[in-house]
Amino acid sequence: MARPKPLSGFPEFLPAARIVEQRVLASLADTFELHGFASIETRALETMEQLTRKGEIDKEVYVVRRLHAEAGAADELGLHFDLTVPFARYVLENAGHLAFPFRRYQIQKVWRGERPQEGRYREFCQADIDVVGQDTLAAHHDVEVARVILEALERLHVEVGLPPVLMRVNNRRLAEGFYRGLGIEDHLAVLQRVDKLDKIGAAAVHELLTADLGLSNAAADSCLALATISTADESFVAGVRALGVRHDLLDEGLEQLAEVVRAGQAAVPGRIVADLKIARGLDYYTGTVYETELSGFEHLGSICSGGRYDSLASDGRTTYPGVGLSIGVTRILVPLLAKGTLTASRVVPSCVLVAVDAEETRAEADVIATRLRARGIACEVAPRADKFGKQIRYADRRGIPFVWFSGNEVKDIRSGEQLPADPDAWLPPAEDLRPVVCSTTGQA
Amino acid sequence: MARPKPLSGFPEFLPAARIVEQRVLASLADTFELHGFASIETRALETMEQLTRKGEIDKEVYVVRRLHAEAGAADELGLHFDLTVPFARYVLENAGHLAFPFRRYQIQKVWRGERPQEGRYREFCQADIDVVGQDTLAAHHDVEVARVILEALERLHVEVGLPPVLMRVNNRRLAEGFYRGLGIEDHLAVLQRVDKLDKIGAAAVHELLTADLGLSNAAADSCLALATISTADESFVAGVRALGVRHDLLDEGLEQLAEVVRAGQAAVPGRIVADLKIARGLDYYTGTVYETELSGFEHLGSICSGGRYDSLASDGRTTYPGVGLSIGVTRILVPLLAKGTLTASRVVPSCVLVAVDAEETRAEADVIATRLRARGIACEVAPRADKFGKQIRYADRRGIPFVWFSGNEVKDIRSGEQLPADPDAWLPPAEDLRPVVCSTTGQA
Repeated sequence: MARPKPLSGFPEFLPAARIVEQRVLASLADTFELHGFASIETRALETMEQLTRKGEIDKEVYVVRRLHAEAGAADELGLHFDLTVPFARYVLENAGHLAFPFRRYQIQKVWRGERPQEGRYREFCQADIDVVGQDTLAAHHDVEVARVILEALERLHVEVGLPPVLMRVNNRRLAEGFYRGLGIEDHLAVLQRVDKLDKIGAAAVHELLTADLGLSNAAADSCLALATISTADESFVAGVRALGVRHDLLDEGLEQLAEVVRAGQAAVPGRIVADLKIARGLDYYTGTVYETELSGFEHLGSICSGGRYDSLASDGRTTYPGVGLSIGVTRILVPLLAKGTLTASRVVPSCVLVAVDAEETRAEADVIATRLRARGIACEVAPRADKFGKQIRYADRRGIPFVWFSGNEVKDIRSGEQLPADPDAWLPPAEDLRPVVCSTTGQA
Repeated sequence: MARPKPLSGFPEFLPAARIVEQRVLASLADTFELHGFASIETRALETMEQLTRKGEIDKEVYVVRRLHAEAGAADELGLHFDLTVPFARYVLENAGHLAFPFRRYQIQKVWRGERPQEGRYREFCQADIDVVGQDTLAAHHDVEVARVILEALERLHVEVGLPPVLMRVNNRRLAEGFYRGLGIEDHLAVLQRVDKLDKIGAAAVHELLTADLGLSNAAADSCLALATISTADESFVAGVRALGVRHDLLDEGLEQLAEVVRAGQAAVPGRIVADLKIARGLDYYTGTVYETELSGFEHLGSICSGGRYDSLASDGRTTYPGVGLSIGVTRILVPLLAKGTLTASRVVPSCVLVAVDAEETRAEADVIATRLRARGIACEVAPRADKFGKQIRYADRRGIPFVWFSGNEVKDIRSGEQLPADPDAWLPPAEDLRPVVCSTTGQA
């Protein structure tokens, strides 16, 4: 067959890039587990009933059917397009076996049948965390998930070389309370118009608020003034108070948002701002909302978003409120890998290539390799008893730093230094043990 | 909405079972990497052209299309049903960027649209290793992959408590050479009949060989005698020699198989036998073939199979021979989890629950938790400032072994012992740090 071509929208990694992805995912999982989040995976397929419950997104769904299903059989299953719908279903299905509040993280591929364009993929990896309660979920969990994500992304910045992030947070209660304090009933209609601020500018939004919604000039001014408040500390509270609007819901929102910003700054200074124009998914979020930019890659849009749902799921008797965030791992990695910002130090796990003198003595090389592996040193045995120069080139081509020769001498092929070594005691420098991620940003 | 029901054939794990799966997958990945295998992942979707190239299996394929694709549009994509077809495609697509022989491991879900029954799933996880060469691939790689898999499964036996395995190996050249040495041209036809030995018995196979294929009684006797040879060492070679058949291909097969068994026994004693009736996928394997039983779970069939392909992939100019094995992770885990053979020591990663005296002092508990996490201790903070008895029950219900109280005292809730502790120095016993897998078979 002819050489196959990549499918647009379905990124695949070569081994070095996959090493970067593995390090990123392992680091995320470790941070999540340090915070007590349990891993789950859900099946890739959901019933179409589940997937289309929210209506709007059905055009992005990939429908799945057996090749030999009867013609005209109803579409029953589709690939999940996020990890929230499957998680809500999992919670309802297994509620009797889960302990609430239930913290879970979930790192899986999702699929969307949309037209591929830059930064949009048809298959991509997400890393989600959520905390879900039974009937109630305390507001401090809104603080917790922001802190976990900030710590996770900062660790990637420090350990892997990911650019630093800026998380923008807002609170729906704050906006709703403010609008209600102004005497506005249809707060969602206002939010919808204010959400266009970055796209169409203040004058156009003002026009929409007054002409479409019949707000007074003063009220429209107040709405716009609220939306332009953005501070890296709790001073936004004073800024909002200065606008002179009062409402209980506003007080509640201000208090909750202040706590998220305060705790976020304490956990990872300089990575969070209160930004009162952030709206996000207009329909379902009911409290804190989060979005996150990658410094220098702002054109990617938000690489980590989420919020609070008062009803993540409900079976009619019990409601499950939740709060969570979703990191777009593929969305972050593909551009960083394409730009060469992140690379791996080698393309194989092997730290050592054990050279082979002659095919008759391959078993001896295998024994050396086994002894090294017993101490956690990844190694492979040369595939052919070629001249040593060729075996060294084999290692060099893969980035394997050491070649082990019979007679127990080990050569660092970067420096050329060759020294006697004991296969039951020799250790490579710690940074050579497994491939590491190299960053051109200088952080890792 | 009503409580959703599980989908038959799509197993999903509760958090404790997922911890077992995570440990198993991490252990497999680590063994593969110690042997120099590089991780890759391929997209879940392949073109239908790729998926149906081998004809037979098309009925098991899940076809995928966008919900709003034009009616009558051709089916273009399907979910992969194994990891070999995608890997072959990946090798062809990226050959110019890969260094051969290329060792890869791949741990992913696969999907088959077949009727669910015991031990059969519509979505399941496989862990594959393959070594692929460009034009040639030395026979010692057949030995290598058997050794890697035996080490990986033995480590799961010792560290996780998986039952021990028995790998059965054979060699197609051996059988073909033997049949040719008997003067038989259509060696595949013989293999096909002999493959039914376990199902229909020796007399019925003998009848097929003589009646269908026109073999003499003596030749049929010889074929059956070959198929009944099974030894845990190289003595099978003498057993075959004693049948008096001579052929160059037979010599080659005997030598290769003897080496696989010898090296397998040396790596992990007692887990491999030469079994000359093993056939496996009649069409594509051309050398060594492998299948593997789990002791006490023989009714599951082979939980790890594979073999040598002379042409894993080809682009017309270059041929890529390969040899590999695939572990059916879900196939192993679902029955072991259902039977309770494997469980996790707790349902959350948390080792410590930091108690909260009052909501006003929650921030102090957060600080303690942060200090513990900085030293790799997973912990969570109590969700409510309940009475301490209730907070202890919260920990107990999740299996969290320690509760940390303000004033820096830590209680082991299993023994009831409570002692002063320094949040910057205290360490739990190593076995409590993260959840461990518990086995009722007594090995872990």
